[in-house]
Amino acid sequence: MNRKELVNEISTKESFLCVGLDTDISKIPTHLHNHPDAIFEFNRAIIDATKDYCVSYKINTAFYESMGMKGWEAMEKTLYYIPSTHFKIADAKRGDIGNTSAQYAKTFFEVLPFDAVTVAPYMGEDSVKPFLEYENKWTIVLGLTSNIGANDFQQKKLADGKTHLYEKVLSTVAEWGTPNNLMFVIGATKAKDLADIRKIIPNHFLLVPGVGVQGGSLKEVAEYGLNTDCGLLVNASRAIIYADSSNDFAVTAGKVAKEYQIEMAEYL
Amino acid sequence: MNRKELVNEISTKESFLCVGLDTDISKIPTHLHNHPDAIFEFNRAIIDATKDYCVSYKINTAFYESMGMKGWEAMEKTLYYIPSTHFKIADAKRGDIGNTSAQYAKTFFEVLPFDAVTVAPYMGEDSVKPFLEYENKWTIVLGLTSNIGANDFQQKKLADGKTHLYEKVLSTVAEWGTPNNLMFVIGATKAKDLADIRKIIPNHFLLVPGVGVQGGSLKEVAEYGLNTDCGLLVNASRAIIYADSSNDFAVTAGKVAKEYQIEMAEYL
Repeated sequence: MNRKELVNEISTKESFLCVGLDTDISKIPTHLHNHPDAIFEFNRAIIDATKDYCVSYKINTAFYESMGMKGWEAMEKTLYYIPSTHFKIADAKRGDIGNTSAQYAKTFFEVLPFDAVTVAPYMGEDSVKPFLEYENKWTIVLGLTSNIGANDFQQKKLADGKTHLYEKVLSTVAEWGTPNNLMFVIGATKAKDLADIRKIIPNHFLLVPGVGVQGGSLKEVAEYGLNTDCGLLVNASRAIIYADSSNDFAVTAGKVAKEYQIEMAEYL
Repeated sequence: MNRKELVNEISTKESFLCVGLDTDISKIPTHLHNHPDAIFEFNRAIIDATKDYCVSYKINTAFYESMGMKGWEAMEKTLYYIPSTHFKIADAKRGDIGNTSAQYAKTFFEVLPFDAVTVAPYMGEDSVKPFLEYENKWTIVLGLTSNIGANDFQQKKLADGKTHLYEKVLSTVAEWGTPNNLMFVIGATKAKDLADIRKIIPNHFLLVPGVGVQGGSLKEVAEYGLNTDCGLLVNASRAIIYADSSNDFAVTAGKVAKEYQIEMAEYL
């Protein structure tokens, strides 16, 4: 999916919501547990209930890998079930030396039809470049994450005494791609930092996790993060998919997604 | 496998060689291509030929993921084929927020019987801790990598004008675990930096890639990196497994592995 198509979807649906399918077998409703393909059945119901209110789905590969072969199969089935109108993100946080990153890029962009994959920046340019070589595919590089561990290295200041490591990551990585094939992960718990971040990368889309369970404010994210093309994909995972553990889990997930969409429409 | 067992293996075999199974279907001998399970057959032959000369195998997950379900299956079969005497590393470079990293740890330490997994440090403490919670399992955190991209961020100096980011990573991460459950990736192309690195982490094992195809010198790595428990696992992947593309590939791989072992015995 290219930028224009993504922006059109956002504008048509008045939503920049990404639903995170962090599907954990221990957290899905008990009545599904006996189903031979419980993870996929859960995801299918969530997708059916939320697809009108979101423009993207994010599959966190960790939750599928931890189920071995069966998990990989459920991930594939889920991916093919997501409508072609929706932007499909592999939240995999990969990154290795060049020839190995090329294998990861092949995995998510050729073997699996994802639109985007999240990538860690620590290993530098040759670890990110292989992902950027695919047309109409997106690389989403970790900038400032929403977890407490972001303070350990990302927030450290560099030799000039002013620039934080994550700011250096943003400005450096921005030169390796374009706003048409590169996005950044910026955690919502640092919403006020978005104003400064927008000075460094005004045009890029930002994938913003941490709204909901992790405590970020959608209003602040929109206030400091929106640009003329929207430029935001706000992700909610647990706040939507685990909103209700009863038989009505999908109905409730749809309601919560709709609430996000209505609030997002106000800000657009 | 615990530290004592690993040190015993090294001492018995007079080897600190790790063979990297970066098995790429496009690079294995053509006579194997028609085999229904070509990747596993290649790995089995390599393991049979090299196991007497190495103490560890490193499976780079990227090369298996890029083959989808079939690749995952080949990885599992390979893993179970490696003798129990050998230290089994998942070179996966994972790392995510705490609840997600816990899923990755489960994947490599419970679902799959790896002894160790490589982890990226960018997301900080809560992204690394879940891996450290497993008894007799090891977390191998990226310190200074062997690729050119290491200059982009790892080699940047911090606010004191002296400490490089990778040095800060080493000293900080060392506090999260112990030399009995934590190792670091230190690229061999920076062998002379090992003397300074040993001042920060004198007791930890270092996983050293980059010897062979990437140009690192084994002699220098041993000179600057060895400690009283050896403290090194030197990895060679392509230099061993692709040393020969003929029908004799395994025999040649065994010869090359033996050459490494003989040289390593001199340094121990």
